[in-house]
Amino acid sequence: MSSAYANLTRTFQRLSRFGHLAAITGWDMQTMMPAGGSRARGEALAELSVLRHEILTAKQVGEWLDQAKQEDLDDVAQANLYEMHRAWQQASLLPASLVEAKSIAGSRCEHAWRQQRPANDWQGFAANLKEVVKLSREEAEIRAQANGCSRYDALLDVFEPGMTSAKLDSTFGDLKQWLPELQQKIVDQQAKETVIAPVGPFPQEQQKELGLAIMKLLGFDFNAGRLDVSAHPFCGGVPQDVRITTRYKSDEFISAMMGVIHETGHARYEQNLPQQWADQPVALARSTAIHESQSLFFEKQLGRSPEFLSLIQPLAVQLLGDRPGMETTNFIALNQRVKPGLIRVDADEVSYPAHVILRYEIERALIAGEIEVDDIPTLWQEKMQHWLGINTAGNYRDGCMQDIHWTDGAFGYFPTYTLGAMYAAQLFQALKRAIPQVNELIAQGDLQPVFNWLQQNIWQHGSRFSTRQLVENATGEDLNPIWFRQHLESRYLK
Amino acid sequence: MSSAYANLTRTFQRLSRFGHLAAITGWDMQTMMPAGGSRARGEALAELSVLRHEILTAKQVGEWLDQAKQEDLDDVAQANLYEMHRAWQQASLLPASLVEAKSIAGSRCEHAWRQQRPANDWQGFAANLKEVVKLSREEAEIRAQANGCSRYDALLDVFEPGMTSAKLDSTFGDLKQWLPELQQKIVDQQAKETVIAPVGPFPQEQQKELGLAIMKLLGFDFNAGRLDVSAHPFCGGVPQDVRITTRYKSDEFISAMMGVIHETGHARYEQNLPQQWADQPVALARSTAIHESQSLFFEKQLGRSPEFLSLIQPLAVQLLGDRPGMETTNFIALNQRVKPGLIRVDADEVSYPAHVILRYEIERALIAGEIEVDDIPTLWQEKMQHWLGINTAGNYRDGCMQDIHWTDGAFGYFPTYTLGAMYAAQLFQALKRAIPQVNELIAQGDLQPVFNWLQQNIWQHGSRFSTRQLVENATGEDLNPIWFRQHLESRYLK
Repeated sequence: MSSAYANLTRTFQRLSRFGHLAAITGWDMQTMMPAGGSRARGEALAELSVLRHEILTAKQVGEWLDQAKQEDLDDVAQANLYEMHRAWQQASLLPASLVEAKSIAGSRCEHAWRQQRPANDWQGFAANLKEVVKLSREEAEIRAQANGCSRYDALLDVFEPGMTSAKLDSTFGDLKQWLPELQQKIVDQQAKETVIAPVGPFPQEQQKELGLAIMKLLGFDFNAGRLDVSAHPFCGGVPQDVRITTRYKSDEFISAMMGVIHETGHARYEQNLPQQWADQPVALARSTAIHESQSLFFEKQLGRSPEFLSLIQPLAVQLLGDRPGMETTNFIALNQRVKPGLIRVDADEVSYPAHVILRYEIERALIAGEIEVDDIPTLWQEKMQHWLGINTAGNYRDGCMQDIHWTDGAFGYFPTYTLGAMYAAQLFQALKRAIPQVNELIAQGDLQPVFNWLQQNIWQHGSRFSTRQLVENATGEDLNPIWFRQHLESRYLK
Repeated sequence: MSSAYANLTRTFQRLSRFGHLAAITGWDMQTMMPAGGSRARGEALAELSVLRHEILTAKQVGEWLDQAKQEDLDDVAQANLYEMHRAWQQASLLPASLVEAKSIAGSRCEHAWRQQRPANDWQGFAANLKEVVKLSREEAEIRAQANGCSRYDALLDVFEPGMTSAKLDSTFGDLKQWLPELQQKIVDQQAKETVIAPVGPFPQEQQKELGLAIMKLLGFDFNAGRLDVSAHPFCGGVPQDVRITTRYKSDEFISAMMGVIHETGHARYEQNLPQQWADQPVALARSTAIHESQSLFFEKQLGRSPEFLSLIQPLAVQLLGDRPGMETTNFIALNQRVKPGLIRVDADEVSYPAHVILRYEIERALIAGEIEVDDIPTLWQEKMQHWLGINTAGNYRDGCMQDIHWTDGAFGYFPTYTLGAMYAAQLFQALKRAIPQVNELIAQGDLQPVFNWLQQNIWQHGSRFSTRQLVENATGEDLNPIWFRQHLESRYLK
């Protein structure tokens, strides 16, 4: 008779294999699929999603989880069992009727949003969003009762296990103390510099060659992944076959290039997750914020450093052609420009946290029932004015309707972006302590020690440790926003 | 309470949706996937395959099939029920142990063959093939007892429902009477002609543009499909999203171009299957031979006709550039060259049937137990010498090891290629009776009447009728090889 734990590993192996098919066909939807395939693909993926939910929440799984706790398991198996239980509990808590209702409301809201956003149609959007919020509150309430925490904390925990709004308030509260003044200083300083934008066109094929060359430099394993094009850059696929994307503009190349560097950070994490535990929950990436820390480590800590930019500047000249603005000094300045704006995804690393904090404050109050959907635009306008000095009155399109997250009810996701940026800074600082000459190595093109350190401290562990334990093991302390501050000050204050 | 038939349609809808995911990830394996993804993908697809087998052979399905026969169903539902029963019976007959053993032996044989073929290693290949043959004989025996037919007929029926070796013997026997002499006459005649091969290189991007232009001319719906590259051209995907492929050589363009035309024939059939019955067995293509009849209708009947070649010649000149050999007369002659050779997939339509008939005769005897694997090379050599005058002694690589079909135990498949060619000729003849001026219309680029006729007579019916009924409705008679003979004589005898 096989052990309960063995039955569980077999169950999660099946789930992972079906997840593989969902991941690849999901990638295909965004990169390859013609529009006419959309409906049938949606139906096929929904069918698989129902199946995976049935497998995960089957009565036996709960019984095996109870029995396995009595079995003699090693540390890795214990960690795996913990993740299995978490996945099972998250899936089992909600009644199927709520899952279905939320999925339908989310699809309807997202689908309509694609038209409503360009039309700046807040009223139309708000009508759908109210239903999504109502169902998300129901979900939050059920999760909160099970976890013994607040509604919002229960949603936050889905994306970032162990994170709480108390901790966020403290961390973001710290940022709010010093970031606005720092940002103003940097903007004032940069106003005195002259930076030239190289003039295009930059043909897509050449930009792609540059992206591939940088991916190679960054150690991307092309035997286990590929680069394609999609409307919004993402990292998909499975650890054995990681699919990253970017998008190309013809008049500038920085956004596509930085998109590639960012996604390569996600990709190297995925490609180096522990294959010996493949298909088990313990082999998965630790959390959303840790995943983001890897992409931001690559894009911001490494990718926008003067050393790395000096290293890739000759590649950019070689593959895109030389022209005014491609000189190393200007190339670096171009990639370090700070300019508060309306759009989160276009924000530099200095003004980015403000975008996140305002969303966090709004969504937390919304889930708590302290505000309603109709209150969002006014709050948005006040907070944008306060933090970034930008007036968004009447501009819903580039204001509170700019993101996809809320349309699907992904409340609790936004904070992970800034947590990721802070973890990235903290990790880079720890790396510098471990390898004091790391910046010189980067400038010389010797990136292997950087990758080895990440492999040693983050990638190889999958979900073996809690986020807090992982970060403490790697850096000697829990999340500490001081490193993010030091990073911004040392990079941007001259 | 839902009816048994309603339960069945829901079950087959699930199977079809899971089949969608298998089709797209299967396409991805051959077009996009990096080598390192192979093992995980294989495991994921095998897991899905086990699941689909479980769903199809669940005890309830057999009960519903019995009950549904008592229910009041319209004609389409009756036809659907018939196809459901057939699928269920084919899947249920074999013990799981045999299915698994055959799958493992087939994978091992195919995998090793990829190395053994270039190495001309017949002994190594034969060792694996013996196991595949042993298991295929077991499968054939079980199916034969259930169907009350011979072992080989039972396998043939899997690919081509209703086809028997008695019918094949009569049809192929007829071909064997007249084809060798006709082939010799044509070869002798063509030896007197001068045909120039245009000299490359032909850049891949230009060849692709030509392929896309011809697909457009042939009515391919790009909103429901796409063209990519793979080692061997194929048509995959799902009716709502048909994925065709070709491969490019730089020194000639005909093979890629004809590959595209061939796969577009498959694609238009798929794209025009009855969407109102989507996800049900009755909405599927009728059979392997009918599918092949559509690709060969496009490639041979239409694609290699002087009228169509004259129509696309200006496109070829425009997109590939003008050069000696691109003149219309030579362009047509190039595409109508008859030259018996070693390789089936490279064969012209005159010598192709000999490749099929020799495989049919060998595989039928092999499954019947009249010969063994060790007898194959000698028989191959004798038959190649006899039919095509080619000596293959010692050349296993381009002889009996050239095809993938037997490695996986797909015995009974080969005859469908020549059945397809004969159906294609019979259909084109019926089209000419219906639209006497069809060749003039084609020459003028008015292809819509051709597509309308195929839509009316083949595509829209899916599996509504038996192959025989479908062909009789379309052409007024059952399969008749005389039309294939008339086609070859009128096209090739000057």
